[in-house]
Amino acid sequence: MKKANKKLNAVIIVIGNEILSGRTQDVNVASISNWLNGLGVKLEEVRIIPDIEKNIVKTITEVRKKFLYVFTTGGIGPTHDDITAKSISKAFNVKYCYHPQAYKILKSYYKKEKFNLGRKKMAKMPKSASLIFNPSSAAPGFVIRHVFCLPGVPSILRSMLGGLDNRIIGGSKILSKTINLRTVESEISIPLEKVQNKFENLEIGSYPFFKQGKIGVSIVIRSTKKQMIGKCLNQIISFIKKKKIKIIEKK
Amino acid sequence: MKKANKKLNAVIIVIGNEILSGRTQDVNVASISNWLNGLGVKLEEVRIIPDIEKNIVKTITEVRKKFLYVFTTGGIGPTHDDITAKSISKAFNVKYCYHPQAYKILKSYYKKEKFNLGRKKMAKMPKSASLIFNPSSAAPGFVIRHVFCLPGVPSILRSMLGGLDNRIIGGSKILSKTINLRTVESEISIPLEKVQNKFENLEIGSYPFFKQGKIGVSIVIRSTKKQMIGKCLNQIISFIKKKKIKIIEKK
Repeated sequence: MKKANKKLNAVIIVIGNEILSGRTQDVNVASISNWLNGLGVKLEEVRIIPDIEKNIVKTITEVRKKFLYVFTTGGIGPTHDDITAKSISKAFNVKYCYHPQAYKILKSYYKKEKFNLGRKKMAKMPKSASLIFNPSSAAPGFVIRHVFCLPGVPSILRSMLGGLDNRIIGGSKILSKTINLRTVESEISIPLEKVQNKFENLEIGSYPFFKQGKIGVSIVIRSTKKQMIGKCLNQIISFIKKKKIKIIEKK
Repeated sequence: MKKANKKLNAVIIVIGNEILSGRTQDVNVASISNWLNGLGVKLEEVRIIPDIEKNIVKTITEVRKKFLYVFTTGGIGPTHDDITAKSISKAFNVKYCYHPQAYKILKSYYKKEKFNLGRKKMAKMPKSASLIFNPSSAAPGFVIRHVFCLPGVPSILRSMLGGLDNRIIGGSKILSKTINLRTVESEISIPLEKVQNKFENLEIGSYPFFKQGKIGVSIVIRSTKKQMIGKCLNQIISFIKKKKIKIIEKK
Protein backbone atom coordinates (compact mmCIF):
# COMPACT_ATOMS: atom_id res chain seq x y z
CA MET A 1 0.00 0.00 0.00
CA LYS A 2 1.44 3.34 -1.08
CA LYS A 3 0.77 6.60 0.80
CA ALA A 4 -0.82 9.74 -0.59
CA ASN A 5 -1.54 13.27 0.55
CA LYS A 6 -4.89 13.61 -1.19
CA LYS A 7 -8.11 13.40 0.81
CA LEU A 8 -8.38 9.68 1.37
CA ASN A 9 -12.10 9.14 1.35
CA ALA A 10 -14.51 6.63 -0.09
CA VAL A 11 -18.18 6.10 -0.87
CA ILE A 12 -20.06 2.82 -1.22
CA ILE A 13 -22.92 2.46 -3.70
CA VAL A 14 -25.08 -0.52 -2.77
CA ILE A 15 -26.95 -1.49 -5.94
CA GLY A 16 -29.92 -3.64 -5.09
CA ASN A 17 -33.72 -3.58 -5.02
CA GLU A 18 -33.57 -6.36 -2.42
CA ILE A 19 -31.96 -4.06 0.15
CA LEU A 20 -34.38 -1.19 -0.54
CA SER A 21 -37.41 -3.49 -0.32
CA GLY A 22 -36.37 -4.63 3.15
CA ARG A 23 -36.03 -8.25 1.97
CA THR A 24 -32.28 -8.46 2.48
CA GLN A 25 -30.16 -6.98 5.24
CA ASP A 26 -26.99 -5.38 3.89
CA VAL A 27 -23.83 -6.43 5.72
CA ASN A 28 -21.29 -5.42 3.09
CA VAL A 29 -21.03 -1.80 4.20
CA ALA A 30 -19.55 -2.84 7.56
CA SER A 31 -17.12 -5.32 5.88
CA ILE A 32 -15.80 -2.74 3.42
CA SER A 33 -15.67 0.00 6.06
CA ASN A 34 -13.66 -2.09 8.53
CA TRP A 35 -11.26 -3.08 5.74
CA LEU A 36 -10.87 0.58 4.70
CA ASN A 37 -10.12 1.63 8.31
CA GLY A 38 -7.03 -0.59 8.19
CA LEU A 39 -5.91 1.04 4.94
CA GLY A 40 -6.41 4.56 6.29
CA VAL A 41 -9.25 5.41 3.93
CA LYS A 42 -12.33 6.97 5.49
CA LEU A 43 -15.79 5.87 4.38
CA GLU A 44 -17.70 9.16 4.19
CA GLU A 45 -20.99 8.20 2.55
CA VAL A 46 -23.10 5.25 1.47
CA ARG A 47 -25.95 5.26 -1.01
CA ILE A 48 -28.35 2.41 -1.58
CA ILE A 49 -29.95 2.69 -5.01
CA PRO A 50 -32.25 0.50 -7.15
CA ASP A 51 -31.32 -1.68 -10.16
CA ILE A 52 -32.13 1.10 -12.61
CA GLU A 53 -29.54 2.09 -15.21
CA LYS A 54 -30.15 5.83 -15.14
CA ASN A 55 -29.92 5.94 -11.34
CA ILE A 56 -26.62 4.05 -11.40
CA VAL A 57 -25.14 6.26 -14.14
CA LYS A 58 -26.23 9.47 -12.39
CA THR A 59 -25.05 8.36 -8.95
CA ILE A 60 -21.63 7.19 -10.14
CA THR A 61 -21.08 10.39 -12.12
CA GLU A 62 -22.00 12.48 -9.09
CA VAL A 63 -20.06 10.68 -6.36
CA ARG A 64 -16.85 10.41 -8.39
CA LYS A 65 -16.46 14.17 -8.08
CA LYS A 66 -16.59 14.07 -4.29
CA PHE A 67 -14.82 10.89 -3.27
CA LEU A 68 -11.45 9.40 -4.19
CA TYR A 69 -12.64 5.79 -4.13
CA VAL A 70 -16.01 4.46 -5.18
CA PHE A 71 -17.05 0.92 -4.28
CA THR A 72 -20.15 -0.67 -5.72
CA THR A 73 -21.72 -3.86 -4.41
CA GLY A 74 -24.20 -6.05 -6.24
CA GLY A 75 -25.49 -6.44 -9.76
CA ILE A 76 -22.60 -8.29 -11.40
CA GLY A 77 -24.23 -11.73 -11.67
CA PRO A 78 -25.78 -13.49 -14.67
CA THR A 79 -29.45 -12.44 -14.44
CA HIS A 80 -31.47 -9.64 -16.10
CA ASP A 81 -31.39 -7.52 -12.93
CA ASP A 82 -27.57 -7.53 -12.89
CA ILE A 83 -26.87 -4.30 -14.71
CA THR A 84 -23.92 -2.80 -12.84
CA ALA A 85 -21.24 -3.51 -15.48
CA LYS A 86 -23.39 -2.20 -18.33
CA SER A 87 -24.36 0.91 -16.36
CA ILE A 88 -20.78 1.68 -15.32
CA SER A 89 -19.74 1.39 -18.99
CA LYS A 90 -22.37 3.97 -19.80
CA ALA A 91 -21.26 6.25 -16.95
CA PHE A 92 -17.71 6.24 -18.39
CA ASN A 93 -18.92 6.29 -21.98
CA VAL A 94 -16.87 3.21 -22.87
CA LYS A 95 -17.83 0.00 -24.66
CA TYR A 96 -19.52 -2.80 -22.67
CA CYS A 97 -17.84 -5.94 -23.96
CA TYR A 98 -16.17 -9.24 -23.12
CA HIS A 99 -13.04 -8.91 -21.03
CA PRO A 100 -10.68 -11.51 -22.58
CA GLN A 101 -9.14 -12.63 -19.27
CA ALA A 102 -12.50 -12.78 -17.47
CA TYR A 103 -13.88 -14.83 -20.37
CA LYS A 104 -10.97 -17.24 -20.11
CA ILE A 105 -11.34 -17.61 -16.32
CA LEU A 106 -15.06 -18.33 -16.54
CA LYS A 107 -14.72 -20.67 -19.52
CA SER A 108 -12.17 -22.77 -17.69
CA TYR A 109 -14.22 -22.72 -14.44
CA TYR A 110 -17.46 -23.89 -16.07
CA LYS A 111 -15.96 -26.09 -18.80
CA LYS A 112 -17.02 -25.60 -22.39
CA GLU A 113 -20.39 -27.39 -22.31
CA LYS A 114 -21.69 -25.47 -19.27
CA PHE A 115 -20.42 -22.05 -20.35
CA ASN A 116 -23.86 -20.73 -21.33
CA LEU A 117 -24.98 -17.19 -22.22
CA GLY A 118 -25.80 -16.27 -18.60
CA ARG A 119 -22.31 -17.25 -17.51
CA LYS A 120 -20.71 -15.49 -20.47
CA LYS A 121 -22.49 -12.30 -19.38
CA MET A 122 -20.35 -12.26 -16.24
CA ALA A 123 -17.29 -11.71 -18.46
CA LYS A 124 -18.78 -8.54 -19.93
CA MET A 125 -17.59 -5.25 -18.41
CA PRO A 126 -16.44 -1.75 -19.35
CA LYS A 127 -13.62 -1.80 -21.92
CA SER A 128 -10.24 -1.13 -20.27
CA ALA A 129 -11.45 -2.27 -16.80
CA SER A 130 -9.02 -4.39 -14.83
CA LEU A 131 -10.13 -7.49 -12.93
CA ILE A 132 -10.69 -8.07 -9.22
CA PHE A 133 -10.06 -11.77 -8.74
CA ASN A 134 -12.63 -13.94 -7.02
CA PRO A 135 -11.14 -16.84 -5.05
CA SER A 136 -14.63 -18.14 -4.12
CA SER A 137 -16.64 -18.53 -7.30
CA ALA A 138 -14.46 -17.43 -10.25
CA ALA A 139 -16.66 -14.57 -11.60
CA PRO A 140 -14.41 -11.52 -11.21
CA GLY A 141 -15.23 -7.98 -10.17
CA PHE A 142 -13.58 -5.07 -11.93
CA VAL A 143 -11.99 -1.66 -11.43
CA ILE A 144 -12.21 1.31 -13.73
CA ARG A 145 -10.68 4.66 -12.73
CA HIS A 146 -11.02 4.19 -8.94
CA VAL A 147 -14.51 2.67 -9.22
CA PHE A 148 -14.30 -0.82 -7.70
CA CYS A 149 -17.22 -3.11 -8.59
CA LEU A 150 -17.80 -6.00 -6.21
CA PRO A 151 -20.50 -8.66 -5.93
CA GLY A 152 -23.40 -8.53 -3.48
CA VAL A 153 -23.00 -11.98 -1.87
CA PRO A 154 -21.26 -11.14 1.43
CA SER A 155 -18.95 -14.18 1.70
CA ILE A 156 -17.74 -13.75 -1.88
CA LEU A 157 -17.25 -10.00 -1.43
CA ARG A 158 -15.18 -10.54 1.72
CA SER A 159 -12.98 -13.10 -0.04
CA MET A 160 -12.16 -10.51 -2.72
CA LEU A 161 -11.21 -7.55 -0.51
CA GLY A 162 -7.79 -8.88 0.57
CA GLY A 163 -6.66 -8.99 -3.05
CA LEU A 164 -7.31 -5.25 -3.35
CA ASP A 165 -4.97 -4.07 -0.56
CA ASN A 166 -2.22 -3.19 -2.99
CA ARG A 167 -4.51 -1.28 -5.31
CA ILE A 168 -5.57 1.27 -2.70
CA ILE A 169 -3.31 4.22 -2.02
CA GLY A 170 -4.02 4.63 1.66
CA GLY A 171 -2.96 6.65 4.67
CA SER A 172 -2.44 6.09 8.38
CA LYS A 173 -4.62 3.40 9.85
CA ILE A 174 -7.84 4.72 11.44
CA LEU A 175 -7.75 3.64 15.09
CA SER A 176 -10.52 3.55 17.63
CA LYS A 177 -10.87 3.12 21.35
CA THR A 178 -14.14 2.23 23.06
CA ILE A 179 -15.09 2.62 26.70
CA ASN A 180 -18.35 1.09 27.92
CA LEU A 181 -20.02 2.72 30.90
CA ARG A 182 -22.90 1.86 33.21
CA THR A 183 -24.75 5.15 32.77
CA VAL A 184 -27.15 6.93 30.44
CA GLU A 185 -26.13 9.49 27.82
CA SER A 186 -27.79 12.46 29.46
CA GLU A 187 -25.65 11.99 32.61
CA ILE A 188 -22.42 12.56 30.69
CA SER A 189 -23.41 14.77 27.76
CA ILE A 190 -22.12 18.08 29.16
CA PRO A 191 -18.60 17.02 30.28
CA LEU A 192 -18.25 14.86 27.14
CA GLU A 193 -18.98 17.85 24.94
CA LYS A 194 -16.29 19.81 26.78
CA VAL A 195 -13.75 17.07 26.00
CA GLN A 196 -14.83 17.03 22.35
CA ASN A 197 -14.31 20.81 22.16
CA LYS A 198 -10.73 20.37 23.42
CA PHE A 199 -9.99 17.64 20.85
CA GLU A 200 -11.55 19.04 17.72
CA ASN A 201 -9.68 16.71 15.38
CA LEU A 202 -10.86 13.56 17.12
CA GLU A 203 -14.22 11.98 16.43
CA ILE A 204 -15.97 11.19 19.72
CA GLY A 205 -19.21 9.26 19.47
CA SER A 206 -21.66 8.34 22.21
CA TYR A 207 -23.97 5.36 21.74
CA PRO A 208 -26.55 3.97 24.18
CA PHE A 209 -26.85 0.18 24.38
CA PHE A 210 -29.07 -2.43 26.01
CA LYS A 211 -27.35 -5.70 26.90
CA GLN A 212 -28.77 -8.49 29.05
CA GLY A 213 -31.47 -6.22 30.38
CA LYS A 214 -29.03 -3.49 31.41
CA ILE A 215 -28.51 -0.13 29.80
CA GLY A 216 -25.18 1.55 29.21
CA VAL A 217 -23.27 3.92 26.97
CA SER A 218 -20.35 3.25 24.64
CA ILE A 219 -18.01 6.17 24.04
CA VAL A 220 -15.94 5.68 20.91
CA ILE A 221 -12.89 7.81 20.04
CA ARG A 222 -11.61 7.62 16.46
CA SER A 223 -8.48 9.09 14.91
CA THR A 224 -5.30 8.14 13.09
CA LYS A 225 -3.29 9.49 16.06
CA LYS A 226 -2.80 6.93 18.83
CA GLN A 227 -1.28 9.33 21.35
CA MET A 228 -4.08 11.84 20.94
CA ILE A 229 -6.68 9.11 21.51
CA GLY A 230 -4.88 8.20 24.75
CA LYS A 231 -4.90 11.80 26.00
CA CYS A 232 -8.58 12.20 25.17
CA LEU A 233 -9.44 8.92 26.88
CA ASN A 234 -7.69 10.05 30.06
CA GLN A 235 -9.79 13.20 30.19
CA ILE A 236 -12.97 11.18 29.72
CA ILE A 237 -11.96 8.71 32.44
CA SER A 238 -11.19 11.61 34.74
CA PHE A 239 -14.74 13.04 34.63
CA ILE A 240 -16.25 9.53 34.67
CA LYS A 241 -14.43 8.82 37.97
CA LYS A 242 -15.54 12.11 39.48
CA LYS A 243 -19.12 11.20 38.64
CA LYS A 244 -18.58 7.72 40.16
CA ILE A 245 -19.79 6.02 36.99
CA LYS A 246 -18.82 2.35 36.59
CA ILE A 247 -16.51 1.48 33.69
CA ILE A 248 -17.67 -1.88 32.28
CA GLU A 249 -14.84 -2.34 29.80
CA LYS A 250 -12.23 -0.59 27.69
CA LYS A 251 -11.27 -1.96 24.28
CA MET B 1 -54.31 6.30 5.73
CA LYS B 2 -55.46 8.54 2.88
CA LYS B 3 -54.67 7.85 -0.78
CA ALA B 4 -52.82 10.11 -3.19
CA ASN B 5 -51.96 10.20 -6.87
CA LYS B 6 -48.52 11.73 -6.47
CA LYS B 7 -45.42 9.55 -6.81
CA LEU B 8 -45.40 7.77 -3.48
CA ASN B 9 -41.73 7.41 -2.82
CA ALA B 10 -39.39 7.81 0.12
CA VAL B 11 -35.73 8.16 1.01
CA ILE B 12 -34.03 7.31 4.30
CA ILE B 13 -31.10 9.38 5.56
CA VAL B 14 -29.16 7.41 8.15
CA ILE B 15 -27.21 9.96 10.18
CA GLY B 16 -24.39 8.29 12.05
CA ASN B 17 -20.61 8.04 12.11
CA GLU B 18 -21.01 4.69 13.87
CA ILE B 19 -22.59 3.11 10.78
CA LEU B 20 -19.98 4.57 8.40
CA SER B 21 -17.10 3.44 10.62
CA GLY B 22 -18.32 -0.15 10.52
CA ARG B 23 -18.83 -0.20 14.29
CA THR B 24 -22.60 -0.56 14.17
CA GLN B 25 -24.74 -2.56 11.78
CA ASP B 26 -27.76 -0.57 10.59
CA VAL B 27 -31.04 -2.48 10.87
CA ASN B 28 -33.42 0.48 10.69
CA VAL B 29 -33.53 0.62 6.89
CA ALA B 30 -35.20 -2.81 6.71
CA SER B 31 -37.68 -1.90 9.50
CA ILE B 32 -38.75 1.34 7.83
CA SER B 33 -38.84 -0.23 4.38
CA ASN B 34 -41.07 -3.13 5.45
CA TRP B 35 -43.39 -0.71 7.21
CA LEU B 36 -43.55 1.50 4.09
CA ASN B 37 -44.38 -1.52 1.87
CA GLY B 38 -47.57 -1.96 3.88
CA LEU B 39 -48.48 1.70 3.39
CA GLY B 40 -47.85 1.56 -0.36
CA VAL B 41 -44.87 3.90 -0.28
CA LYS B 42 -41.76 2.78 -2.14
CA LEU B 43 -38.35 3.28 -0.59
CA GLU B 44 -36.25 4.43 -3.56
CA GLU B 45 -32.96 5.48 -1.99
CA VAL B 46 -30.97 5.41 1.23
CA ARG B 47 -28.03 7.59 2.16
CA ILE B 48 -25.76 7.06 5.13
CA ILE B 49 -24.02 10.30 6.06
CA PRO B 50 -21.76 11.46 8.91
CA ASP B 51 -22.69 13.62 11.94
CA ILE B 52 -21.63 16.81 10.16
CA GLU B 53 -24.05 19.72 9.98
CA LYS B 54 -23.23 20.87 6.46
CA ASN B 55 -23.61 17.32 5.10
CA ILE B 56 -27.01 16.95 6.77
CA VAL B 57 -28.25 20.34 5.52
CA LYS B 58 -27.06 19.68 1.97
CA THR B 59 -28.44 16.14 1.82
CA ILE B 60 -31.87 17.07 3.20
CA THR B 61 -32.15 20.02 0.80
CA GLU B 62 -31.22 17.79 -2.14
CA VAL B 63 -33.38 14.74 -1.42
CA ARG B 64 -36.53 16.75 -0.61
CA LYS B 65 -36.71 17.72 -4.28
CA LYS B 66 -36.74 14.09 -5.43
CA PHE B 67 -38.72 12.20 -2.83
CA LEU B 68 -42.13 12.75 -1.26
CA TYR B 69 -41.16 11.45 2.17
CA VAL B 70 -37.81 11.81 3.90
CA PHE B 71 -37.02 9.74 6.99
CA THR B 72 -33.94 10.40 9.07
CA THR B 73 -32.61 8.03 11.72
CA GLY B 74 -30.18 8.91 14.48
CA GLY B 75 -28.77 12.02 16.07
CA ILE B 76 -31.69 13.12 18.25
CA GLY B 77 -30.24 12.14 21.63
CA PRO B 78 -28.69 14.32 24.35
CA THR B 79 -24.96 14.24 23.43
CA HIS B 80 -22.74 16.62 21.43
CA ASP B 81 -22.81 14.33 18.37
CA ASP B 82 -26.64 14.49 18.22
CA ILE B 83 -27.08 17.32 15.75
CA THR B 84 -30.01 16.21 13.61
CA ALA B 85 -32.63 18.61 15.05
CA LYS B 86 -30.29 21.60 14.83
CA SER B 87 -29.23 20.72 11.27
CA ILE B 88 -32.80 20.19 10.07
CA SER B 89 -33.72 23.61 11.52
CA LYS B 90 -30.90 25.07 9.46
CA ALA B 91 -32.01 23.19 6.32
CA PHE B 92 -35.49 24.74 6.68
CA ASN B 93 -34.14 28.07 7.85
CA VAL B 94 -36.32 28.03 10.98
CA LYS B 95 -35.47 28.61 14.63
CA TYR B 96 -34.02 25.72 16.68
CA CYS B 97 -35.83 26.00 20.01
CA TYR B 98 -37.69 24.20 22.77
CA HIS B 99 -40.88 22.52 21.66
CA PRO B 100 -43.33 23.26 24.51
CA GLN B 101 -45.05 19.86 24.41
CA ALA B 102 -41.78 17.93 24.09
CA TYR B 103 -40.40 19.92 27.03
CA LYS B 104 -43.44 19.03 29.10
CA ILE B 105 -43.25 15.31 28.22
CA LEU B 106 -39.55 15.09 29.10
CA LYS B 107 -39.91 17.14 32.28
CA SER B 108 -42.65 14.88 33.56
CA TYR B 109 -40.72 11.71 32.53
CA TYR B 110 -37.49 12.70 34.29
CA LYS B 111 -39.01 14.64 37.22
CA LYS B 112 -37.76 18.14 37.98
CA GLU B 113 -34.50 17.27 39.76
CA LYS B 114 -33.23 14.95 37.02
CA PHE B 115 -34.26 17.16 34.09
CA ASN B 116 -30.73 18.34 33.30
CA LEU B 117 -29.37 20.25 30.30
CA GLY B 118 -28.65 17.10 28.27
CA ARG B 119 -32.23 15.95 28.70
CA LYS B 120 -33.61 19.41 27.96
CA LYS B 121 -31.69 19.32 24.67
CA MET B 122 -33.96 16.49 23.50
CA ALA B 123 -36.89 18.94 23.60
CA LYS B 124 -35.17 21.29 21.15
CA MET B 125 -36.25 20.99 17.53
CA PRO B 126 -37.16 23.10 14.48
CA LYS B 127 -39.86 25.66 15.27
CA SER B 128 -43.27 24.51 13.93
CA ALA B 129 -42.28 20.82 13.92
CA SER B 130 -44.90 18.39 15.18
CA LEU B 131 -44.04 15.51 17.51
CA ILE B 132 -43.64 11.80 16.86
CA PHE B 133 -44.51 10.16 20.16
CA ASN B 134 -42.13 7.68 21.74
CA PRO B 135 -43.85 4.96 23.77
CA SER B 136 -40.48 3.45 24.81
CA SER B 137 -38.36 6.21 26.30
CA ALA B 138 -40.35 9.47 26.16
CA ALA B 139 -37.97 11.57 24.01
CA PRO B 140 -40.04 12.33 20.91
CA GLY B 141 -39.07 12.47 17.26
CA PHE B 142 -40.51 15.18 15.03
CA VAL B 143 -41.92 15.90 11.59
CA ILE B 144 -41.44 19.04 9.56
CA ARG B 145 -42.83 19.27 6.02
CA HIS B 146 -42.65 15.54 5.19
CA VAL B 147 -39.25 15.12 6.87
CA PHE B 148 -39.72 12.55 9.66
CA CYS B 149 -36.91 12.47 12.22
CA LEU B 150 -36.57 9.24 14.18
CA PRO B 151 -34.03 7.96 16.70
CA GLY B 152 -31.22 5.52 15.87
CA VAL B 153 -31.87 2.90 18.57
CA PRO B 154 -33.70 0.15 16.62
CA SER B 155 -36.17 -0.98 19.31
CA ILE B 156 -37.21 2.62 20.04
CA LEU B 157 -37.52 3.46 16.35
CA ARG B 158 -39.74 0.41 15.73
CA SER B 159 -42.00 1.37 18.63
CA MET B 160 -42.57 4.78 17.05
CA LEU B 161 -43.45 3.71 13.49
CA GLY B 162 -46.97 2.46 14.24
CA GLY B 163 -47.97 5.90 15.51
CA LEU B 164 -47.09 7.37 12.12
CA ASP B 165 -49.47 5.26 9.97
CA ASN B 166 -52.08 8.00 9.84
CA ARG B 167 -49.59 10.68 8.90
CA ILE B 168 -48.49 9.01 5.68
CA ILE B 169 -50.62 9.47 2.58
CA GLY B 170 -50.03 6.09 0.99
CA GLY B 171 -51.11 3.95 -1.94
CA SER B 172 -51.79 0.31 -2.66
CA LYS B 173 -49.81 -2.10 -0.51
CA ILE B 174 -46.61 -3.32 -2.16
CA LEU B 175 -46.90 -7.12 -2.36
CA SER B 176 -44.23 -9.70 -3.00
CA LYS B 177 -44.04 -13.38 -3.81
CA THR B 178 -40.89 -15.46 -3.41
CA ILE B 179 -40.06 -18.81 -4.94
CA ASN B 180 -36.93 -20.63 -3.77
CA LEU B 181 -35.28 -23.01 -6.23
CA ARG B 182 -32.55 -25.61 -6.06
CA THR B 183 -30.51 -24.23 -8.95
CA VAL B 184 -27.92 -21.58 -9.77
CA GLU B 185 -28.71 -18.20 -11.35
CA SER B 186 -26.95 -18.87 -14.63
CA GLU B 187 -29.23 -21.88 -15.31
CA ILE B 188 -32.34 -19.69 -15.33
CA SER B 189 -31.12 -16.27 -16.41
CA ILE B 190 -32.27 -16.43 -20.06
CA PRO B 191 -35.90 -17.64 -19.55
CA LEU B 192 -36.25 -15.37 -16.50
CA GLU B 193 -35.27 -12.36 -18.57
CA LYS B 194 -37.93 -13.32 -21.14
CA VAL B 195 -40.58 -13.33 -18.39
CA GLN B 196 -39.35 -9.95 -17.10
CA ASN B 197 -39.67 -8.52 -20.62
CA LYS B 198 -43.30 -9.66 -20.77
CA PHE B 199 -44.11 -8.10 -17.38
CA GLU B 200 -42.36 -4.77 -17.60
CA ASN B 201 -44.26 -3.23 -14.70
CA LEU B 202 -43.33 -5.97 -12.26
CA GLU B 203 -40.03 -6.01 -10.42
CA ILE B 204 -38.47 -9.47 -10.68
CA GLY B 205 -35.32 -10.04 -8.66
CA SER B 206 -33.03 -13.06 -8.60
CA TYR B 207 -30.86 -13.73 -5.53
CA PRO B 208 -28.47 -16.62 -4.94
CA PHE B 209 -28.37 -18.07 -1.42
CA PHE B 210 -26.36 -20.59 0.59
CA LYS B 211 -28.30 -22.41 3.31
CA GLN B 212 -27.10 -25.43 5.31
CA GLY B 213 -24.34 -26.06 2.82
CA LYS B 214 -26.65 -26.02 -0.18
CA ILE B 215 -26.94 -23.37 -2.86
CA GLY B 216 -30.14 -22.08 -4.35
CA VAL B 217 -31.83 -19.09 -5.94
CA SER B 218 -34.70 -16.95 -4.65
CA ILE B 219 -36.86 -15.31 -7.28
CA VAL B 220 -38.83 -12.39 -5.88
CA ILE B 221 -41.73 -10.72 -7.72
CA ARG B 222 -42.88 -7.32 -6.42
CA SER B 223 -45.86 -5.21 -7.40
CA THR B 224 -49.02 -3.64 -6.03
CA LYS B 225 -51.06 -5.88 -8.38
CA LYS B 226 -51.78 -9.31 -6.89
CA GLN B 227 -53.27 -10.82 -10.04
CA MET B 228 -50.32 -9.75 -12.16
CA ILE B 229 -47.90 -11.33 -9.68
CA GLY B 230 -49.88 -14.58 -9.96
CA LYS B 231 -49.69 -14.58 -13.78
CA CYS B 232 -45.98 -13.86 -13.72
CA LEU B 233 -45.37 -16.59 -11.16
CA ASN B 234 -47.17 -19.13 -13.35
CA GLN B 235 -44.90 -18.34 -16.29
CA ILE B 236 -41.82 -18.73 -14.11
CA ILE B 237 -43.07 -22.06 -12.70
CA SER B 238 -43.75 -23.22 -16.22
CA PHE B 239 -40.13 -22.85 -17.39
CA ILE B 240 -38.82 -24.13 -14.04
CA LYS B 241 -40.79 -27.37 -14.51
CA LYS B 242 -39.56 -27.76 -18.09
CA LYS B 243 -36.00 -27.48 -16.82
CA LYS B 244 -36.80 -30.03 -14.04
CA ILE B 245 -35.57 -27.65 -11.36
CA LYS B 246 -36.71 -28.44 -7.80
CA ILE B 247 -38.96 -25.86 -6.11
CA ILE B 248 -37.93 -25.70 -2.43
CA GLU B 249 -40.68 -23.36 -1.29
CA LYS B 250 -43.10 -20.64 -2.34
CA LYS B 251 -44.02 -17.83 0.04
